[in-house]
Amino acid sequence: MNEFCQPSADDIAVFRTIVGDDQVVTDPELLNTYSKDYTEDLRFMPAVVVKPGTTQEVSKVLAHCNTMHIPVTPRGAGTGLSGGALPVYGGVVLSMERFNRILEIDERNFQATVEPGVINEVFQQAVREKGLFYPPDPASKGSCFLGGNLSHSSGGPRAVKYGTTRDYVLNMELVLANGEVIETGANTLKYSTGYNLTHLLIGSEGTLGVITKIQFRLIPHPEQTLLMLASFPSPENACEAVSGIFRAGCTPSVCEFVEPEGFRLSSTMLNIPFEIKEGIGAYLLIEVDGNDLNNLMLDCEKISVVLDEFGASEVLLAQSSDEKEYFWKLRRSIGEATKHGNVYKEEDTVVPRAELPRLFSGVKEISQRYGFRTVCYGHAGDGNLHVNILKDQLPDAFWNGDLDKAIVEIFELCKKLGGTISGEHGIGYVQKKYMPVVMPESQLQLMRGIKLAFDPRGILNPGKIF
Amino acid sequence: MNEFCQPSADDIAVFRTIVGDDQVVTDPELLNTYSKDYTEDLRFMPAVVVKPGTTQEVSKVLAHCNTMHIPVTPRGAGTGLSGGALPVYGGVVLSMERFNRILEIDERNFQATVEPGVINEVFQQAVREKGLFYPPDPASKGSCFLGGNLSHSSGGPRAVKYGTTRDYVLNMELVLANGEVIETGANTLKYSTGYNLTHLLIGSEGTLGVITKIQFRLIPHPEQTLLMLASFPSPENACEAVSGIFRAGCTPSVCEFVEPEGFRLSSTMLNIPFEIKEGIGAYLLIEVDGNDLNNLMLDCEKISVVLDEFGASEVLLAQSSDEKEYFWKLRRSIGEATKHGNVYKEEDTVVPRAELPRLFSGVKEISQRYGFRTVCYGHAGDGNLHVNILKDQLPDAFWNGDLDKAIVEIFELCKKLGGTISGEHGIGYVQKKYMPVVMPESQLQLMRGIKLAFDPRGILNPGKIF
Repeated sequence: MNEFCQPSADDIAVFRTIVGDDQVVTDPELLNTYSKDYTEDLRFMPAVVVKPGTTQEVSKVLAHCNTMHIPVTPRGAGTGLSGGALPVYGGVVLSMERFNRILEIDERNFQATVEPGVINEVFQQAVREKGLFYPPDPASKGSCFLGGNLSHSSGGPRAVKYGTTRDYVLNMELVLANGEVIETGANTLKYSTGYNLTHLLIGSEGTLGVITKIQFRLIPHPEQTLLMLASFPSPENACEAVSGIFRAGCTPSVCEFVEPEGFRLSSTMLNIPFEIKEGIGAYLLIEVDGNDLNNLMLDCEKISVVLDEFGASEVLLAQSSDEKEYFWKLRRSIGEATKHGNVYKEEDTVVPRAELPRLFSGVKEISQRYGFRTVCYGHAGDGNLHVNILKDQLPDAFWNGDLDKAIVEIFELCKKLGGTISGEHGIGYVQKKYMPVVMPESQLQLMRGIKLAFDPRGILNPGKIF
Repeated sequence: MNEFCQPSADDIAVFRTIVGDDQVVTDPELLNTYSKDYTEDLRFMPAVVVKPGTTQEVSKVLAHCNTMHIPVTPRGAGTGLSGGALPVYGGVVLSMERFNRILEIDERNFQATVEPGVINEVFQQAVREKGLFYPPDPASKGSCFLGGNLSHSSGGPRAVKYGTTRDYVLNMELVLANGEVIETGANTLKYSTGYNLTHLLIGSEGTLGVITKIQFRLIPHPEQTLLMLASFPSPENACEAVSGIFRAGCTPSVCEFVEPEGFRLSSTMLNIPFEIKEGIGAYLLIEVDGNDLNNLMLDCEKISVVLDEFGASEVLLAQSSDEKEYFWKLRRSIGEATKHGNVYKEEDTVVPRAELPRLFSGVKEISQRYGFRTVCYGHAGDGNLHVNILKDQLPDAFWNGDLDKAIVEIFELCKKLGGTISGEHGIGYVQKKYMPVVMPESQLQLMRGIKLAFDPRGILNPGKIF
């Protein structure tokens, strides 16, 4: 299966005919950009990058590659954290960067038709201008593509109230490996018409087809938000408080957990001040949203009572939009700051919300026992904790050897707590070896069977998931 | 593929050993109950009904049937409207009626672990006692099983605000055709760990595996509801108003459309009075919910303004819980009343919300042209219109002949408007011949490929979907 062909000069000439000379990249220096994504320091060189501009061009490129058995790695903005866009078998990188048009914002139906190369934040802003809301907001929203968001069912801070990308996709246009074009569903809020291919495709990481058009549902944009930052003496207090907030009947639109080290790193990188007071062990960043400011103030009061009960040392309410932006900037930069100038691995652990304290303390116990440093932060309201493992001065032998055992222990803990190994980053290339920790071979076999039905020759994003 | 074996005396003896003598039904009179569901007047006799009580028993029964190539039709409460539970190839009906336990309501995580034979309303009430909310509420909620709800991703009136069954399922325990037992996901709010088998299974109508345990997510129960009944001079006015309500920034928890004939039939069947005033062409039943009654009153006022704009003749606000129950009783009985003493076919048309007026007038035009009577009602907020076609005194030759052409026209209209042929009832047995109206052969081929990966011998609910 994996004995792929690399594109020959003839194949590349075919690609040039299909998409135009300018849209085929073979210059090694330019290819380099497409050899990596945001995952660790991994690199795999493609033989060629092809940039189609229409569905028909995608179809022709795939049909040719399918016939010639050339591997094709579809690529969005390359901001993925599991190596999903890495061309591990070389071949063609199919860059969707030219699919960057918002085709329609349908204000009558609260829907939008979008190409997969549109940047998440560009789309959010475009619909907001019509009073509409597209909630999924991964940290990379300023650069990531919507097609990539579908490929992993990306979440972000607001998922706790609004769900992930999955919850906003109604339908998509999909090019199959053999070049056939289908729609996966219909443009309707409800769908019970055979197997739900739309939902199967979401999270399939470019291994089942290439998305060329997306139909989103949208919701009315909430008019107001309030943002609070609560500090706690211990991470366990903070984690316990998260579940308490929901049990008190509050549904915040954001509920993020940050270790002090996270804010320290981001404030240093951004060169903006942030004082970490003596004895602070963790923070929660909590937002509420809605249309009535008085109601939101009541929500904040109710939440404050819970935070106090769980031992919060201090609760700050952002007093202006500048102050909100200040907190958000610090929060969103943690990922980048943590990895800045260090080698790292990021794990996307997820457990039921109330198990977060046990996950956190388990991760710290494991990292201490193996002797490495972790910075943890993430979407506490969803039980989704990003565990950044930092190499610092650790020997390569450990980093490439025993560290794996520690990661397996972390994932076994997730499994034990009812969770799994990825909440929103996907499996891609770097997590696939851990799949057996959370699922039996028979389940992987089902996934391989699905893959076979969609892509019998296995040309689409090979080397990923299983 | 379809040359199945019927269970022999030896096979039945094996079933008796697995589940116990009492749980195997062969008496023809008792079998009769399992030969039908709520779909038209269709009947198919099974050879035997087997009632397992544990996952292991399900596993053993399936493993035996798989080896012997005996068809197995999993069955919930038999309230389906597309013939999903009809044993069209005879063989075994696998009744899940003994899987009727709520195993855990986890108040810390807002989750519940439930067996598939629990009745929807029983589950709703059990979680409500803990202040929690399980929103999906199909009209058959008093008798339908949660497992059946998963099999079609059932909706109901509240789907317009809260989504369908799909939106509340986190994970399930599944027995594969060969008897292997897997979990489809994890008990987490976010999941990006390989192909999403949970979402693939939802809506797969018992063709991919037998669900033996369900992990639901729950939400806090809203404390208050207000209910309004608006009457309109024409159905088109009412349909236009639906989209207007959402465009005005309101998200009602229910937005149902009813033709006057629907209320006339249900009030007659129930023998409770309901006056249909002169010149009324349609009704909307609209509910808002939340925790603050003052806010809900404001919502109702806002909605009333929209209803007026679209020409509502009258808007009634239910003044007591008795009056609410009165309206609900009338609404929920329409399905049964429409079919009462008549032969019928029910179509589960669905389009983008704002296309509802065009769907409704198209359906009426088609029915007039072909000369049959329809009663339409349903979940207008979702663009989901149930079209009941009544046989009345029409000749059998038309009913079994040209009527089909009319149904195809209705479904072609759905497709043209961006919709499809089933929003919540599923395809099952009666709609499968219409699948090519909305999808190409290549898409059906993908579904068959998925089926093959899960159930290579095709024993699970054969004759359904494709």
